[in-house]
Amino acid sequence: MTQNIYDNEGFFAGYAKLPRSVEGLDGAPEWPTLRAMLPKLDGLRVVDLGCGFGWFCRFAHEAGARQVTGFDVSEKMLARARETSDGAIAYRQADLETLALPKGSVDLVYSSLALHYLANLEHLMTEVHRALVPGGSLVFSVEHPMYTAPGHPGWSRDADGRFAWPVNRYFEQGERSTDWLAKGVIKQHRTVATYLNLLLRLGFTLDKIEEWGATAADVAAHPDWAGADERPSFLLVSARR
Amino acid sequence: MTQNIYDNEGFFAGYAKLPRSVEGLDGAPEWPTLRAMLPKLDGLRVVDLGCGFGWFCRFAHEAGARQVTGFDVSEKMLARARETSDGAIAYRQADLETLALPKGSVDLVYSSLALHYLANLEHLMTEVHRALVPGGSLVFSVEHPMYTAPGHPGWSRDADGRFAWPVNRYFEQGERSTDWLAKGVIKQHRTVATYLNLLLRLGFTLDKIEEWGATAADVAAHPDWAGADERPSFLLVSARR
Repeated sequence: MTQNIYDNEGFFAGYAKLPRSVEGLDGAPEWPTLRAMLPKLDGLRVVDLGCGFGWFCRFAHEAGARQVTGFDVSEKMLARARETSDGAIAYRQADLETLALPKGSVDLVYSSLALHYLANLEHLMTEVHRALVPGGSLVFSVEHPMYTAPGHPGWSRDADGRFAWPVNRYFEQGERSTDWLAKGVIKQHRTVATYLNLLLRLGFTLDKIEEWGATAADVAAHPDWAGADERPSFLLVSARR
Repeated sequence: MTQNIYDNEGFFAGYAKLPRSVEGLDGAPEWPTLRAMLPKLDGLRVVDLGCGFGWFCRFAHEAGARQVTGFDVSEKMLARARETSDGAIAYRQADLETLALPKGSVDLVYSSLALHYLANLEHLMTEVHRALVPGGSLVFSVEHPMYTAPGHPGWSRDADGRFAWPVNRYFEQGERSTDWLAKGVIKQHRTVATYLNLLLRLGFTLDKIEEWGATAADVAAHPDWAGADERPSFLLVSARR
């Protein structure tokens, strides 16, 4: 079963202070790119897998989605999400690896930076495909495989002194343990091809792929992001059933 | 216009000695993966973009393709290709950036490690889409964007002494000059997303994506490949009109 690091006190405390937790979608630098990959939300039945504090659920609700359900494994995050909800959004605790959704019940499945925690992604994607109506959309982001691959993630410098991101273990798919907000956070490394071929094999049609990296302007504005414009941080995918 | 490095004496002499030149398809380690992405060739009209010595054209002809045309910018390579042809295969000199193909005249467009030389890929892919019959296939390989990106391509070692491939300049698409068989070989770096979104925008449906890297067994058999199992060398794509 997937690690539930979000209910770890230290991790949660750190996560709750991130710009994307405090400021919501506008605090997530990849949001404009991901947003541009969404269908028009008005009237849609929307599911958010790994909804966290519920920022996207509220966005979808305000954009006119007729039904919004957020799933998350973390009770702590759901408790916070429910505090800011007027009840129009359903927040449900669920292990995404064993989630079951009614067939043909959803128009859009959305997921932001959650799927790379799952050891068994095929089960969930099979369920997502079954739950979507024909023509329904799947839009998600994950940490980019170039980012998750290395055994020792971190920056080096090239011969010009420029930041570079040494990649190895790219084909060794599976568990990676990193220290981010807490020690021993477990993520799953998959290749770009693995993500895309899983969708194609299940019968999805790919609409758009984005590899999100910071811009030079982002890095100038956030000195602690140094290097983040040299390689992608996130993989964003838009597909249709 | 794209550099025609293959007609450079030194480059050609070096290229002609590579296993993939001497042994043909079986000398190309990615061939089994690429072959598995091909449709059944029997009865197809096939175009090979950057056909080189014509190894794939002969393979397609022998597999029962009813019409095979190989295009290449290099007269030297075409001359060699024609030497081994009985005339059933048409070899034509062409700049792939300005190539014109009759509409709806082709069932399969194939290209091996040629498209990353082209400065203007959109023109060619538009032409390929127009030339393919509905349901027709496009199968190609290019150098993987992780491989073409760095300003200073080469191996480093991680904290365990393991090979790693430092990636930077990933989002700086365009020209890269490398010294491979000759000095100043010009290739074009594009992101994975750029390759795939170009096809999607033109109306192709993606069937399969492969990121080819050497296996540990390959590296054990070829000591000079050390590191090549740590990250992908080639991006392989199969799409349909």
